[in-house]
Amino acid sequence: MHERLNQQIVEGEEAGALDLPTPYLLFLGDSTDPAYAKTACGLHDWAADKCLGEYKLPSATVTTGLPFLTPAEAAARGARALVIGVANSGGVIPPDWRPALVEALDAGLDLISGMHDRLTAEPLLAERARRLGRRLIDVREPPPDILVATGVRRSGKRLLTVGTDCALGKKYSALALARAFAALGVDAQFRATGQTGIMIAGGGIPLDAVVADFVAGAAEMLSPDAAGDHWDVIEGQGSLLHPAYSGVALALLHGSQPDVIVACHDAGRAALLGHDDYPLPPVEEIIDLNLRLGARTNPGIRCGGVTINTSSLAAEAADALLEREADRLGLPVADPIRGGTRFAQLVESCLGQ
Amino acid sequence: MHERLNQQIVEGEEAGALDLPTPYLLFLGDSTDPAYAKTACGLHDWAADKCLGEYKLPSATVTTGLPFLTPAEAAARGARALVIGVANSGGVIPPDWRPALVEALDAGLDLISGMHDRLTAEPLLAERARRLGRRLIDVREPPPDILVATGVRRSGKRLLTVGTDCALGKKYSALALARAFAALGVDAQFRATGQTGIMIAGGGIPLDAVVADFVAGAAEMLSPDAAGDHWDVIEGQGSLLHPAYSGVALALLHGSQPDVIVACHDAGRAALLGHDDYPLPPVEEIIDLNLRLGARTNPGIRCGGVTINTSSLAAEAADALLEREADRLGLPVADPIRGGTRFAQLVESCLGQ
Repeated sequence: MHERLNQQIVEGEEAGALDLPTPYLLFLGDSTDPAYAKTACGLHDWAADKCLGEYKLPSATVTTGLPFLTPAEAAARGARALVIGVANSGGVIPPDWRPALVEALDAGLDLISGMHDRLTAEPLLAERARRLGRRLIDVREPPPDILVATGVRRSGKRLLTVGTDCALGKKYSALALARAFAALGVDAQFRATGQTGIMIAGGGIPLDAVVADFVAGAAEMLSPDAAGDHWDVIEGQGSLLHPAYSGVALALLHGSQPDVIVACHDAGRAALLGHDDYPLPPVEEIIDLNLRLGARTNPGIRCGGVTINTSSLAAEAADALLEREADRLGLPVADPIRGGTRFAQLVESCLGQ
Repeated sequence: MHERLNQQIVEGEEAGALDLPTPYLLFLGDSTDPAYAKTACGLHDWAADKCLGEYKLPSATVTTGLPFLTPAEAAARGARALVIGVANSGGVIPPDWRPALVEALDAGLDLISGMHDRLTAEPLLAERARRLGRRLIDVREPPPDILVATGVRRSGKRLLTVGTDCALGKKYSALALARAFAALGVDAQFRATGQTGIMIAGGGIPLDAVVADFVAGAAEMLSPDAAGDHWDVIEGQGSLLHPAYSGVALALLHGSQPDVIVACHDAGRAALLGHDDYPLPPVEEIIDLNLRLGARTNPGIRCGGVTINTSSLAAEAADALLEREADRLGLPVADPIRGGTRFAQLVESCLGQ
């Protein structure tokens, strides 16, 4: 199923297709919060056949469930690259990760990173990679030819996942919806806007690394004119009510001009990740704001439904929550990881069936 | 009055104070639309003592009202720099401006630019400047040490000008309000967020040139903790309903966490500048959206009033419009360029008097 999705994604890819060395060893740094290990977890869940194991510092408590392998062990099993699997705030590569990264280069692995900090900007790594003939691949480097957004309507159909916070399921929801659309025979393509999505899809634009004036233009470029029955399923970023990342969310909304939004929420989170004084907003407020602002570039915008990350709940409690929220909101509400009838109803609603 | 404002501005400047060579020769390129010549006009209006004349290509129809001088004539009168006075969409330096820029270097002038395109990235200019010992100054270069926004409340008071479009008076309104605050003995500082404001104030952060993830953080940095009775008067950017620049507007709103917004509008504009299919939104919609979204980082946010650019109207028609809008909105409405009682009422309302 993943293979099929990946083919679907790569086919017809316009925006920056990448040639990444696989399989990967996933590096978890010193992570103690699973929410920050979303790149590693995303690759494990959506590109499992490309992931051999995980490596981390002794202080890390997070795991993907993959076996722990040193770079040398991973290389012996055929790994070709170590992927920085952490997405911390600010996209920083901390100095205490360097010995592990050097160890990977010495073991014969290339390095792949989606951080704002560039691997190529670290003199120690750049020099070692040059000497050993290894590649340093920064996937958060946007293409150089982005124009200012025009706001002109494009042909084809678009779905954008939006959220009440960062790191709560916008990428997963988009990947699951693109896969479900394709399974129904709909011509659908996942469009990656962040480093993990780009590593999974093999292409896309890292929107949060684009200079602010050009973000909406990059979103326009990412989902170009298409056949009338083609769907671009676009990975959302940030949240309109996030104190640091709302600007990216709004530029992506206006540039994507989605026909359908799907709002993503987390049942187990009380406050924004890393911002304890900011309560998670109600999902209906995020829907309302996205519809109101999104109507500016697509007056036909509608909400297809809601996804809730229920990983913190047992199956029965999760289902009760999804049912309660569906009744309250009058919309299909599903957890794409749990799937089932609720998710099928969400897919139908998005397609307008 | 301008001198006093400038002192007020420079005093205590934290964010990137610049040492710009003055006086200036203002370059208008091939501009035929006054809205795109806002840098030249802004400098002429707010830093008149630094501006000797204007220079432009034969196809240009715009004028600042200053005498036309060739670079050689300007240099003979004491000019030290040619300032690119145009702010086109995308911030591009077109190839057909190059001969004029080279002419300025040859005549002994430094070059100052606020475009996204960097003077220093043009090999012809870089080589000529190096050979002649001239400076190429790109003021749209953000500082390197910007962090992701925290959303933590800061001390002191903040006013942000917001707008229904670009280039309709957000900078003018902020400058006029900062000047009026200072004239009342209020400790006030203009905070520049765009190239023209930075050239006028001698410091600030060009927000639209910051990488998207860091724009709200840059806005936090621009108006740091201050004394309880100190006002930062922050120059707004873009519009929440602009298809290309809404992201910058929202990041600036959230990062500025303003106590007061002033909404800026243009009586003579039917559609967004350069986007004919996008009608100018009603000013009350922009007020409502800014208050609703801005409450996320400052629950006490309120609207101090509205400024309307009435330059397209005769005095009597302008006053009738301002009165009608004040009645309709239930807020002080003024044209800061016309000043008078209406503007004094707006100032009082902003200060909460």
